[in-house]
Amino acid sequence: MKEVISRAIDEDIGSGDITTDNIIKEREEGKGIMIAKEKGVLAGLEVSETVFDLIDPGLKFAAEKEDGELITENDVFAYVRGDIRSILKAERLALNFLQRMSGIATKTRAYVEKIKDYDAKVVDTRKTTPNLRSFEKSAVRIGGGHNHRMGLYDAALIKDNHIKSAGGIREALKKIDDEVSHIKKIEIEVESIEGVKKALEGGADIIMLDNMDLEDMERSVELIGDKAISEASGGITLENIEEVARTGVNVISVGALTHHIESIDMSLDLE
Amino acid sequence: MKEVISRAIDEDIGSGDITTDNIIKEREEGKGIMIAKEKGVLAGLEVSETVFDLIDPGLKFAAEKEDGELITENDVFAYVRGDIRSILKAERLALNFLQRMSGIATKTRAYVEKIKDYDAKVVDTRKTTPNLRSFEKSAVRIGGGHNHRMGLYDAALIKDNHIKSAGGIREALKKIDDEVSHIKKIEIEVESIEGVKKALEGGADIIMLDNMDLEDMERSVELIGDKAISEASGGITLENIEEVARTGVNVISVGALTHHIESIDMSLDLE
Amino acid sequence: MKEVISRAIDEDIGSGDITTDNIIKEREEGKGIMIAKEKGVLAGLEVSETVFDLIDPGLKFAAEKEDGELITENDVFAYVRGDIRSILKAERLALNFLQRMSGIATKTRAYVEKIKDYDAKVVDTRKTTPNLRSFEKSAVRIGGGHNHRMGLYDAALIKDNHIKSAGGIREALKKIDDEVSHIKKIEIEVESIEGVKKALEGGADIIMLDNMDLEDMERSVELIGDKAISEASGGITLENIEEVARTGVNVISVGALTHHIESIDMSLDLE
Amino acid sequence: MKEVISRAIDEDIGSGDITTDNIIKEREEGKGIMIAKEKGVLAGLEVSETVFDLIDPGLKFAAEKEDGELITENDVFAYVRGDIRSILKAERLALNFLQRMSGIATKTRAYVEKIKDYDAKVVDTRKTTPNLRSFEKSAVRIGGGHNHRMGLYDAALIKDNHIKSAGGIREALKKIDDEVSHIKKIEIEVESIEGVKKALEGGADIIMLDNMDLEDMERSVELIGDKAISEASGGITLENIEEVARTGVNVISVGALTHHIESIDMSLDLE
Amino acid sequence: MKEVISRAIDEDIGSGDITTDNIIKEREEGKGIMIAKEKGVLAGLEVSETVFDLIDPGLKFAAEKEDGELITENDVFAYVRGDIRSILKAERLALNFLQRMSGIATKTRAYVEKIKDYDAKVVDTRKTTPNLRSFEKSAVRIGGGHNHRMGLYDAALIKDNHIKSAGGIREALKKIDDEVSHIKKIEIEVESIEGVKKALEGGADIIMLDNMDLEDMERSVELIGDKAISEASGGITLENIEEVARTGVNVISVGALTHHIESIDMSLDLE
Amino acid sequence: MKEVISRAIDEDIGSGDITTDNIIKEREEGKGIMIAKEKGVLAGLEVSETVFDLIDPGLKFAAEKEDGELITENDVFAYVRGDIRSILKAERLALNFLQRMSGIATKTRAYVEKIKDYDAKVVDTRKTTPNLRSFEKSAVRIGGGHNHRMGLYDAALIKDNHIKSAGGIREALKKIDDEVSHIKKIEIEVESIEGVKKALEGGADIIMLDNMDLEDMERSVELIGDKAISEASGGITLENIEEVARTGVNVISVGALTHHIESIDMSLDLE
Repeated sequence: MKEVISRAIDEDIGSGDITTDNIIKEREEGKGIMIAKEKGVLAGLEVSETVFDLIDPGLKFAAEKEDGELITENDVFAYVRGDIRSILKAERLALNFLQRMSGIATKTRAYVEKIKDYDAKVVDTRKTTPNLRSFEKSAVRIGGGHNHRMGLYDAALIKDNHIKSAGGIREALKKIDDEVSHIKKIEIEVESIEGVKKALEGGADIIMLDNMDLEDMERSVELIGDKAISEASGGITLENIEEVARTGVNVISVGALTHHIESIDMSLDLE
Repeated sequence: MKEVISRAIDEDIGSGDITTDNIIKEREEGKGIMIAKEKGVLAGLEVSETVFDLIDPGLKFAAEKEDGELITENDVFAYVRGDIRSILKAERLALNFLQRMSGIATKTRAYVEKIKDYDAKVVDTRKTTPNLRSFEKSAVRIGGGHNHRMGLYDAALIKDNHIKSAGGIREALKKIDDEVSHIKKIEIEVESIEGVKKALEGGADIIMLDNMDLEDMERSVELIGDKAISEASGGITLENIEEVARTGVNVISVGALTHHIESIDMSLDLE
Repeated sequence: MKEVISRAIDEDIGSGDITTDNIIKEREEGKGIMIAKEKGVLAGLEVSETVFDLIDPGLKFAAEKEDGELITENDVFAYVRGDIRSILKAERLALNFLQRMSGIATKTRAYVEKIKDYDAKVVDTRKTTPNLRSFEKSAVRIGGGHNHRMGLYDAALIKDNHIKSAGGIREALKKIDDEVSHIKKIEIEVESIEGVKKALEGGADIIMLDNMDLEDMERSVELIGDKAISEASGGITLENIEEVARTGVNVISVGALTHHIESIDMSLDLE
Repeated sequence: MKEVISRAIDEDIGSGDITTDNIIKEREEGKGIMIAKEKGVLAGLEVSETVFDLIDPGLKFAAEKEDGELITENDVFAYVRGDIRSILKAERLALNFLQRMSGIATKTRAYVEKIKDYDAKVVDTRKTTPNLRSFEKSAVRIGGGHNHRMGLYDAALIKDNHIKSAGGIREALKKIDDEVSHIKKIEIEVESIEGVKKALEGGADIIMLDNMDLEDMERSVELIGDKAISEASGGITLENIEEVARTGVNVISVGALTHHIESIDMSLDLE
Repeated sequence: MKEVISRAIDEDIGSGDITTDNIIKEREEGKGIMIAKEKGVLAGLEVSETVFDLIDPGLKFAAEKEDGELITENDVFAYVRGDIRSILKAERLALNFLQRMSGIATKTRAYVEKIKDYDAKVVDTRKTTPNLRSFEKSAVRIGGGHNHRMGLYDAALIKDNHIKSAGGIREALKKIDDEVSHIKKIEIEVESIEGVKKALEGGADIIMLDNMDLEDMERSVELIGDKAISEASGGITLENIEEVARTGVNVISVGALTHHIESIDMSLDLE
Repeated sequence: MKEVISRAIDEDIGSGDITTDNIIKEREEGKGIMIAKEKGVLAGLEVSETVFDLIDPGLKFAAEKEDGELITENDVFAYVRGDIRSILKAERLALNFLQRMSGIATKTRAYVEKIKDYDAKVVDTRKTTPNLRSFEKSAVRIGGGHNHRMGLYDAALIKDNHIKSAGGIREALKKIDDEVSHIKKIEIEVESIEGVKKALEGGADIIMLDNMDLEDMERSVELIGDKAISEASGGITLENIEEVARTGVNVISVGALTHHIESIDMSLDLE
């Protein structure tokens, strides 16, 4: 995390903050107040604290709220005290992380709330911002969601293109079962009841029901029972997630959690 | 650019793509077709080509459209040929860049279109995704917008917090004029007609009219004339940008270009 | 992989190979012959080719044998042609990788051979050389073994210390099942039949039978059936692996594959 | 050193220790006891302390033994106190370093003991694990050995391949003497009495007697006198090192110190 | 800054300071006295403090003088206390930075003094030592000079080669004005009165009078008035800078500040 | 070398060359002519070629002169052909390396010429520019000089501070001889005939005669004979080097070679 943040500091400050360094006196102390300017779920406190700390280890950060808490307009959620030059240099980057992460947590919370009466879990996808995946997946958890795989390395997910190239669901599952480590789960994407059956025969650990209509999905969930984990995927929205959950699927993956990012507005004011 | 992309490849592939490496045969050749699944302005071709190239220099990428072109659902905008394993490993990351950058270009284009009959330029802000600023600012240009400063280093922008700490607009401008390099422009944020007058006296190169109402803004533009560049900022939306442009301001900065990111849906299918 | 090898090149060459650069003429071409000096399973050809390529892209490497093939004393397994200075600078590092990886593959092959009439797989552990894990796990696969998890991130393995701290097997499994991603497998280490039963109740995907005697292990394998994967671990040697396999366990993990490294002797001679 | 260890931490923890983070409570304190499980010479305390420190600067490490001390089964050689999560994340890596380094120190000590009644020094070679050379050379010193050159840069060592290409021992020595810095020593590898004579004429600082029989070696040592340093090399084992030392050579280099690595078994238990 | 210094530490210490580590006892404390051995303007205290701190955070550095102060032979300007090994390892690098930076500050001061009765500013160029630009530009400021642009990114400077390729001064200015961000200044290099006129028409922010004779320069300054900033450039020496300043130019750029580097002699003695 | 150059490219180009990219057309081809503007010894061709190559592998560089050749005003020493944008981006950095390295080679040549009738070698010191040591030491060799040690790691040099702390010359030499690798040379700095005698008794390989007057130096050279290498050091100038050489010392080290850097003026013009 520190390495990503260090690079982001370099990106913003580069050869120096010429405004601050030429206007603000050296070693002038002050206090910055971090304020929400719209409603949402707060996420990113630890990240923003690290931004302040890496820019100046002398800054003292104190959170008034916790990650995962609801904030509304004008809520003060944190303070930062110390050298004003350092506070001003850190301001934009700390906010950029907080606003994006809170945006993701807020959206995740909305999806989770919609299906809170069902057993299904809301999970994310790999449609994350390049190089910020762990930040975004953390925001999803803060919003009450769960994570799908971290990358191509920590689970097998056999998709359409793999099946095509392998010559079928059965062939793909057979091949991977012979080769993949015993500690990795195998998920496969299917589009039909027929596919579900083959996936079960092939011993898949998770079956992704890709863009299935509700009727087929319900049928699939029944077929799967507890022989595998069922996962709904494709075209999930706030409008339809409840009826998807009603089919009984175990997991619902929502790309929009991270590929539509609506930052929550926030600001930092010097007292 | 290559370094950012290399890190993103590591983020996604990590210790290996266990699905692809265990299912797809070594050295099997194929062709991936890149297709738009919704309407927008295409951006990120060069970036995605670099993703493919860094994963496997043997892949051949051929664009059918250019950055900045309009694409609509089902438009094929590029092909990539070569080792199927490599294509599948690159797929998600290439799309993640393309979808985000196209989302930004699309939004920028919408703002630019709204004021195409005015002289004002649409510009971005520093509210960009950490470590992806140059990618996002490039997408803004592809969408027809212009860039504000790249970071804290390439121009002075005296904001509210600086003015407070310096003891006023005049004091802040005086201080910076003595210190800052002759090759750097000086911009100052003001909130009132009074502020505009002081900024002009202080010799600011650019005056940012922050959250001003339209009447004050018009008055300010008149006062400024060609003694400085005028910039409207704060709360700009697709709904109000035209009336802002009508005041005659030279530049309109829009945070939403990069802090609300709506990826354009796209896919890569093996032929 | 390239990054690790580049660093290793820096480690060895540093400010320059003062012997070679002062004795060998510039641009003198030659041919290096890579020869086994003892019996073993060859592993590391791709790595050594990359060493040559990173030191001088003009070098041509041609393998006479393949990774996984048996080599014996005096077998020529590869050639490298080109600038003699470059060949001599690369020699030691290329051999260091090849000798270590071949040592691991050779040892793995010995374990695998011992149980070739059983269904059990030989797998490695996390007792690998710091920063060379992917090289060593690759050598294990070349030798016919399989890989356990790559690190702490790609599967849950609840060990003694975790169980103690959680307050028991049941508690540990419950906790992790609520939290961990649906795509990760859960393995737990148990030492008794009692532990096996609790692990099964808790829904573990893999049950590690740690340092169990053969009788208990057999009993455990029966209890587990196909409700989970059984893994034998602890104190496995070439002498006892066959009787362990005979218990019917699915997987046998062997730390010695990578924590006792006996390099296979090899040399590079200029023709 | 810190950089190598940081990378090794990334290698093992990657996107997170999913077991520990989901089972162990945040901020739970505890104490880890580091225990030898077999006999050997301890090495790597500073390295392992750095592992703990880099993972969590709050951990307190206290060694009960020193590097170079003999340890036997069940000896407690160190404690680490603090956040249990951090201790468990660091455990394997700290042990991986300690076990390997202690393995090397143990083997070195065995060689050194064999010739303790002679003046000869036991030295290592460049047959070290890529990217861990300084750790392994440090372990050799802890075991009572000395180091040969660190890499290709800090001394000239003219080997068989260089001599061939230069056209003879005399030619090679002449060339290098003209070119190499006056602060670098020049060593040359010879295989016969004839070679020794030419090396002496050429003014070599060190003469490596490569794979010579004992008789020739003795003769060579006499010839060399104190005109150069004599070094025995090739095929040195615990069985033959004493008779090699008896020839009067100044230095005996032993590749096996680092290319056969037998880790010493150790464990970390939570109290 | 820390990254540059860390690399420089690696460059000098590499695999270890074999003299110090073998002669000086571990944990022996002492005090190093930093002394000027010739006259000059001190610069680089913060950098040298960072060198000591990165090599050993336990060292205490105390400056007796400030950056920008005049020092003469035998002046003690700083002390460093702590582990003697660490002091000796840091000595050369700390001095290398201090001597170079003080050399630059000293030379800058000489130029600035020469024109202290004029309004013109002395500025540097991009003729700096690769990878040390920010250190050298900082030394220029310490010496009383100002900085020109930091690199190719923070202002436009249209030079001879650009004008040639664009087809003229007017064409070049037109092109760049359409494209470049509103926050960047535009400077153009001209060689004649004619050029000055075209530059003014084209709206340049800064006009560089390149290698102009004094008469033309004076004429140009008059023409420019306060419509742009005038900058004299080319062949400026300590001998001619005063007469250049007399023409009334705003800025005088002096390449020699950084491309002729005369280190100020200094030493570090153990008490 | 590539890494240093890549960082220097980043330093200069940063977020983009806004002048060139906005004025010069994409893919316009041209030819840059590299011209000497003053007399000197050319050095740095390979480095400058690498600058062009890293900025754009499509550029073709052709040298008309060789490193080490004398150049005079108006000599064309190289061409570079290809994309004009790339040539202009590389221009300053390529020249910065060439001008500095040629400055060092020119100065070295002057010293070497002065003593061409003597056997003594001119060598450099560790007073080099941080992070550019290998470039500068290469320029010294191009100018006809030789290199002293590369850093603290490749030879022992016992200086005043070490002797003080060890308690005398004898003690220092004894300590280091016991500990340092047999492949490292040991040099010691002495200031008197007495010191020379102790150094010889202690078995030093090289004896540095620090700031000795000519009479003592001559006496020392006699005493040393061929029992060690003699090195004159301290206060060597173009004026006194010949009389120093006349004393018969083997090596003369000259700090000024690299701590007074007078760049040779050069330019790049588009044809």
